[in-house]
Amino acid sequence: MNRELISVSRGEKPAELLLANARIVNVFNGRVEKGNVAIAAGRIAGVGDYHRAKEVLDLEGKFLLPGLIDGHVHLESSLLHPAEYARAVVPRGVLGVITDLHEIANVCGLEGIRWVLACAEKLPLDVFVMAPSCVPATNLETSGAEIGLAELETMLGWPQVIGLGEVMNYPGVVRGESKLLGKVRLFRGRPIDGHAPGLRGEDLNAYLAAGVLSDHECTSLEEAQEKLSRGMWLMIREGSSEKNLETLLPLVDDQTYGRCLFVVDDRSCADLLQDGDVDGVVRKAIKLGLDPVRAIRLATLNPAEYFRLAHLGAVAPGYWANLMVVDDLFNLVAELVFYRGGLVAREGQPIFEEPEIEAGPEVSQTVRVKPFDIEALRIPARGEAFPVIEVIPGQILTRRRDERAREVDGFIEPDLERDVLKLVVVERHKATGHIGRGLVRGFGLKRGALASSVAHDSHNLVAVGVDDRDIFLAIKELEKLQGGLVVVAGGRVISSLPLPIAGLLSNEPLKTVVERLGRLEQAASDLGCSLPSPFSILSFLALPVIPELRLTDRGLVDVTSFKLLES
Amino acid sequence: MNRELISVSRGEKPAELLLANARIVNVFNGRVEKGNVAIAAGRIAGVGDYHRAKEVLDLEGKFLLPGLIDGHVHLESSLLHPAEYARAVVPRGVLGVITDLHEIANVCGLEGIRWVLACAEKLPLDVFVMAPSCVPATNLETSGAEIGLAELETMLGWPQVIGLGEVMNYPGVVRGESKLLGKVRLFRGRPIDGHAPGLRGEDLNAYLAAGVLSDHECTSLEEAQEKLSRGMWLMIREGSSEKNLETLLPLVDDQTYGRCLFVVDDRSCADLLQDGDVDGVVRKAIKLGLDPVRAIRLATLNPAEYFRLAHLGAVAPGYWANLMVVDDLFNLVAELVFYRGGLVAREGQPIFEEPEIEAGPEVSQTVRVKPFDIEALRIPARGEAFPVIEVIPGQILTRRRDERAREVDGFIEPDLERDVLKLVVVERHKATGHIGRGLVRGFGLKRGALASSVAHDSHNLVAVGVDDRDIFLAIKELEKLQGGLVVVAGGRVISSLPLPIAGLLSNEPLKTVVERLGRLEQAASDLGCSLPSPFSILSFLALPVIPELRLTDRGLVDVTSFKLLES
Repeated sequence: MNRELISVSRGEKPAELLLANARIVNVFNGRVEKGNVAIAAGRIAGVGDYHRAKEVLDLEGKFLLPGLIDGHVHLESSLLHPAEYARAVVPRGVLGVITDLHEIANVCGLEGIRWVLACAEKLPLDVFVMAPSCVPATNLETSGAEIGLAELETMLGWPQVIGLGEVMNYPGVVRGESKLLGKVRLFRGRPIDGHAPGLRGEDLNAYLAAGVLSDHECTSLEEAQEKLSRGMWLMIREGSSEKNLETLLPLVDDQTYGRCLFVVDDRSCADLLQDGDVDGVVRKAIKLGLDPVRAIRLATLNPAEYFRLAHLGAVAPGYWANLMVVDDLFNLVAELVFYRGGLVAREGQPIFEEPEIEAGPEVSQTVRVKPFDIEALRIPARGEAFPVIEVIPGQILTRRRDERAREVDGFIEPDLERDVLKLVVVERHKATGHIGRGLVRGFGLKRGALASSVAHDSHNLVAVGVDDRDIFLAIKELEKLQGGLVVVAGGRVISSLPLPIAGLLSNEPLKTVVERLGRLEQAASDLGCSLPSPFSILSFLALPVIPELRLTDRGLVDVTSFKLLES
Repeated sequence: MNRELISVSRGEKPAELLLANARIVNVFNGRVEKGNVAIAAGRIAGVGDYHRAKEVLDLEGKFLLPGLIDGHVHLESSLLHPAEYARAVVPRGVLGVITDLHEIANVCGLEGIRWVLACAEKLPLDVFVMAPSCVPATNLETSGAEIGLAELETMLGWPQVIGLGEVMNYPGVVRGESKLLGKVRLFRGRPIDGHAPGLRGEDLNAYLAAGVLSDHECTSLEEAQEKLSRGMWLMIREGSSEKNLETLLPLVDDQTYGRCLFVVDDRSCADLLQDGDVDGVVRKAIKLGLDPVRAIRLATLNPAEYFRLAHLGAVAPGYWANLMVVDDLFNLVAELVFYRGGLVAREGQPIFEEPEIEAGPEVSQTVRVKPFDIEALRIPARGEAFPVIEVIPGQILTRRRDERAREVDGFIEPDLERDVLKLVVVERHKATGHIGRGLVRGFGLKRGALASSVAHDSHNLVAVGVDDRDIFLAIKELEKLQGGLVVVAGGRVISSLPLPIAGLLSNEPLKTVVERLGRLEQAASDLGCSLPSPFSILSFLALPVIPELRLTDRGLVDVTSFKLLES
């Protein structure tokens, strides 16, 4: 800290900014107290009876809160450029995110993470990174990069890297896989996030014995109780698809609240626009009956304590002046937002400049496909049952159904009557020429094709369609756009959302992205698609860690046996 | 962590030790739960339904607690060798201490701290060090060593050093003294302990703006409330002289308990024997009405969280198996104590070996006095009022009284009728020949002299006496002993406690030290001394940071003006 700040604290020098007549939310004692807050050098110099300042803002009794911190979010899920993400969430009072950038890391490796951090430096948002522990997710697919021990060691030296990101390969940990344990060991003494849906009993103990400290995957109260009682920090997630707040909130009581936090994990751009980021979680928790000051604590001081973020998450001397002003502690609508003492949003609108951020070739030219002919999409008939991926409505789980496919001229073809469509995954990082081919049921598409360069976790190109011509065109369009989402029919591109950054992120403003995504979904619906969020479902069909059947660029994967099927 | 531990967690391998049928104190959820605890590789492999083990110990429903952690203690205050300290506290369930070794650091510098840490390595006690921030305490005295920025940087590299010790020079911090702020800056991001008795309002804000995180000096509820609400971690101290528990306990409520800890700061060997270390504080808090599990949390999980001690302070998978077994959660008498899974005490008795620990010359030959004659103790009369240090019963504060002294043959002499005795401080680190001379009231001594090499914070030789001959002999005896406490009368040594390690610590067992100290106090009493703990009072008379008047080797110090008086 500096002498300047101390002088303002002592009242020897005037503050740069004085927030007068505030009702201050005190997360240390759970109370709301009246007072003035003196700010200098980006920090809070003092809370109390201050009057001298270069600028005085009379809050007229409104509530002053610490800026909110989202303890676990994948920024890429929004499809937004980091600058646009900031413009979306900062006006809502979200001034800190702890992010695991494993999506962009799967495409661009450390360069992708570096680029996000370079953006973040110019934004009124504190971006802390948990180093991705599982890139690539499996060896049954081709990713753009690998984050191994060497890369993790590099990241350890970056000031924004504060811990190890969600250790999703919990079976590997529990089995004692040495490569994985080596990664955990490297981060010993720092926050190490877990990701262990349904893990209980002895296997949970083993996961904790390995050094994992938190979890955000609880879906039942009993599971959450057990994890908390075994020492895990409990991240209560309320994302776009996974919503656990209502189920888990009863666990937050006088004994436990200190080790609980609110997180979003994944939120779509539409949800960010509509309901916000972790501010929406806090708001919902208050509506569900949690005391507002406590709800705020779960998205301020608690994440700061778990992640060891010094001087963030409270309105107190020495703390960064990341603050929001609200009129109503129950609605929690930010009227003013300050980042390091500077006003950055007013009445829900950002008032900071869109920074000039170059996206260099390392993140903007990431779609490298080996030239192929339309014939490469064909699946030779084999005169026996073929495994079909069946989408389960409302879930990202799939079922495997082995059935006789429609065969034409020695090739397997989609069968609209049984809603069996073609699914292909085209490798796009290293131009290997790998193409995975399969069948999927559940989209309901009657014409055309959908394609996406967002395809967890390796983010190859995935397309679903009624005929090879439209699928081929959709893939070609993604190549041309260097990533994006497209709807194609009758040999032409109907609708698209370019995602030129790593094939994951748009360059356009939040509202435009939401609108274009809406148009894409409408176009898909017009082609007969019955899924409400077909691109979200599509993006998970290549993820070979979620049962039962998936398709990667290497072919069909039986997740239960964790093996590639013969093709 | 290791694969071995994980295998035991999963039940694939038998535990090394199984504590069966325990009632486990769970500091995460505030409950007591029944279960078995499997231990391997010094850690807890799992809590739950474990049965296979090389050794099974049936706890028959007794309570199993995490080992206690004392968040702030000066080990040297006990006068005990670290090994003897461990033998005193470990059988009580105290298995971790966070210590600021500024006493031995003032005498021996880094060598002293290194020696304590070398001892600690061989003990069943986790010793964590806060690097001393204020050695020497002032420039008005001669210490044996200085801990400057360079020494602090060295200490930062030691694994046991986890933060910066109590920043006692709070006026310096608040004034923005750059040397001090440099030390604080060096430890940014780590725990930085405060020490700011009575600091409130704007000056408190300034102290916090500088980066200090905790305080253990609160004596009133209002002061503690303010400090807590401004973000300080509150250490509730119950030491030998300073007792704040009863006053501050009402502050520990559902909103605040997560940021409060129990500490002892200073406990005498007699109190350790009688009442224990932080276990005594927990016991008293329970007697005063605090829920036992919460009281235990304030001396386990909470210090672990504040000091960021990974995997200490709870009974949970991956945590170190530092444990105690008690039959009654209210009395909290340890029946069994385990350190890293090994039994180290039973029924209050240590069952670990006294380790062989060499005290090399750097810590055992620390009394170096420049030869002087008895005449050097004389105070020339000046025919005017002389400042007398007046001891205030029950406090370490003193008053300054300027009064005409008794004069004989041109020299100032003690005046028994007015209880005015001679006080001298002889420099003993660098053989500078500095001797401070003064007068003190309040000891009541009618014959002889008392002398001590424990004299905060520089630990020169301090003596009080009725005549120069006995004072001289007492100092000579301390030289011979290389430190200690002595009572002298009529030209002979009546009683003594050798403190050969740095002039601060004994080599003898706890009970012997307590007995010898008792005999010393009895001897002092026999000579007319009216103070119950005269050596404790004597040890503070050379500390020039506590008002109003002190005597160092450089002379009388007016603490209010922070200046040496002309002598």
